[in-house]
Amino acid sequence: MRQDSRQHPFEAAIALQPQPDGSWQGRTSPAFANMIGPYGGVTAAQCLQSVLRHPQRLGDPIAFTVNFAAAIADGDFVLRPRPVRTNRSTQHWAIEMQQDGQLVATATAVTATRRDTWSGHEARMPEVPRPGDAPRTVRRGVEWLNRYEMRFLEGAIPKEWDGETPDDSLSRLWVRDDPPRPLDFASLTAIADVFFPRVWLRRATPTPIGTVSMTVYYHADAAQLASLGPGHLLLQARGQGFGGGYFDHSGQLWDEGGSLVATTHQVVYFKE
Amino acid sequence: MRQDSRQHPFEAAIALQPQPDGSWQGRTSPAFANMIGPYGGVTAAQCLQSVLRHPQRLGDPIAFTVNFAAAIADGDFVLRPRPVRTNRSTQHWAIEMQQDGQLVATATAVTATRRDTWSGHEARMPEVPRPGDAPRTVRRGVEWLNRYEMRFLEGAIPKEWDGETPDDSLSRLWVRDDPPRPLDFASLTAIADVFFPRVWLRRATPTPIGTVSMTVYYHADAAQLASLGPGHLLLQARGQGFGGGYFDHSGQLWDEGGSLVATTHQVVYFKE
Repeated sequence: MRQDSRQHPFEAAIALQPQPDGSWQGRTSPAFANMIGPYGGVTAAQCLQSVLRHPQRLGDPIAFTVNFAAAIADGDFVLRPRPVRTNRSTQHWAIEMQQDGQLVATATAVTATRRDTWSGHEARMPEVPRPGDAPRTVRRGVEWLNRYEMRFLEGAIPKEWDGETPDDSLSRLWVRDDPPRPLDFASLTAIADVFFPRVWLRRATPTPIGTVSMTVYYHADAAQLASLGPGHLLLQARGQGFGGGYFDHSGQLWDEGGSLVATTHQVVYFKE
Repeated sequence: MRQDSRQHPFEAAIALQPQPDGSWQGRTSPAFANMIGPYGGVTAAQCLQSVLRHPQRLGDPIAFTVNFAAAIADGDFVLRPRPVRTNRSTQHWAIEMQQDGQLVATATAVTATRRDTWSGHEARMPEVPRPGDAPRTVRRGVEWLNRYEMRFLEGAIPKEWDGETPDDSLSRLWVRDDPPRPLDFASLTAIADVFFPRVWLRRATPTPIGTVSMTVYYHADAAQLASLGPGHLLLQARGQGFGGGYFDHSGQLWDEGGSLVATTHQVVYFKE
């Protein structure tokens, strides 16, 4: 692995080394450490990055689903992206992440060359203060939190863990990389996982959790993303079903100009 | 394939024959024919059914994602479900569907044994007329439409294809199999794809479309589903992003008693 102190920590985290057998080798990043193992958003980004860097890739990501199959240990991993079907303008990918020969994550991706068509995003950005008018939210704890600038506007993490249960788990916040870094598909995918668990907001009770599966649909192409530079994204998520040890949420990501950049969903295990 | 005239058409459509190499053979069903090839919901259900019938399956489906990689021809197909990781209470699956040795669909599934935990669904059923108070919506055209009893309450398919563009693509409808059949995970998964394309509602312009990827998160276990018998489900979906040849929607499915049964998302190709 290249160790360059001038390299952005996210860039270092998604660095992958091509192997002779077509797989990629990477390493978990201490800069994105979570309570146990790495921040899931970076694991997702690493899986997608193995497709983005693949010499046979066609077009930009349209849909990406990652399934977190096991706890990921700090250290090396191997990624095996496979283009399982290539059509004229779309391509389907299956990705496996392994550690010590054991599967720890699977993912699928659809990439495609986009065309100019009718457009009209329906999920509109809510009226919110500009990023410069919202104070940065201080969040302490695990290391990866320091890699993101978050400005909560609504639905911040409970201050009092008093077991009160609001009916609504809506959160809205501005997010960007810290230090700022121009957006790309990998960082957008990582940011899509930045929401703290909706069950904490609903219950205000500390509950062990783990994301099981996350999906991202992309509504911007590479050029649109690049045009945003290191801009903030407005993120919104709201829980849907909670019970039997699992909950899900549905979320949206907009750029500062109010254009929908991605939508995301995830289902999360919770302990009790 | 068993051909039994007393067999429910959905039952016949998801019938799979175990093969010596661990794969399953199935056949597209004329009863679920779409414009070209089969109704995608049944393809999804067939993929999931290969997991549900697998002798090593652990628990009930939690998350399921299917990627439609190519047009599916009328005729035989082979399904290869693989349990890629089995933990104490969760199991991860990768599924491939092939025709004539070519991959036509991939899917991933997470199954798990559920436990009693705190629960509190947040996506609440809207106030709507009961199924018995809503007239059945007559939809003619492709054959699979005759396999579902649909009662549109809001956002029906445009009567006039006049190119008007409403701001909102919300649809609400009661749905069940026709003839009625007790709900299970396979039929629930098929029903999750029943929405006509949101881009038709937004544009009132006939546009060729094709679902690229669909995800379902399950909020009921097998016992809860079985308790619903052949009841109606209230379905709701709304578009999110539309542009560059793709749109997505986010949807919910409730039982007649108002309990959230599943949530679903999909991203769809559209032509112009």
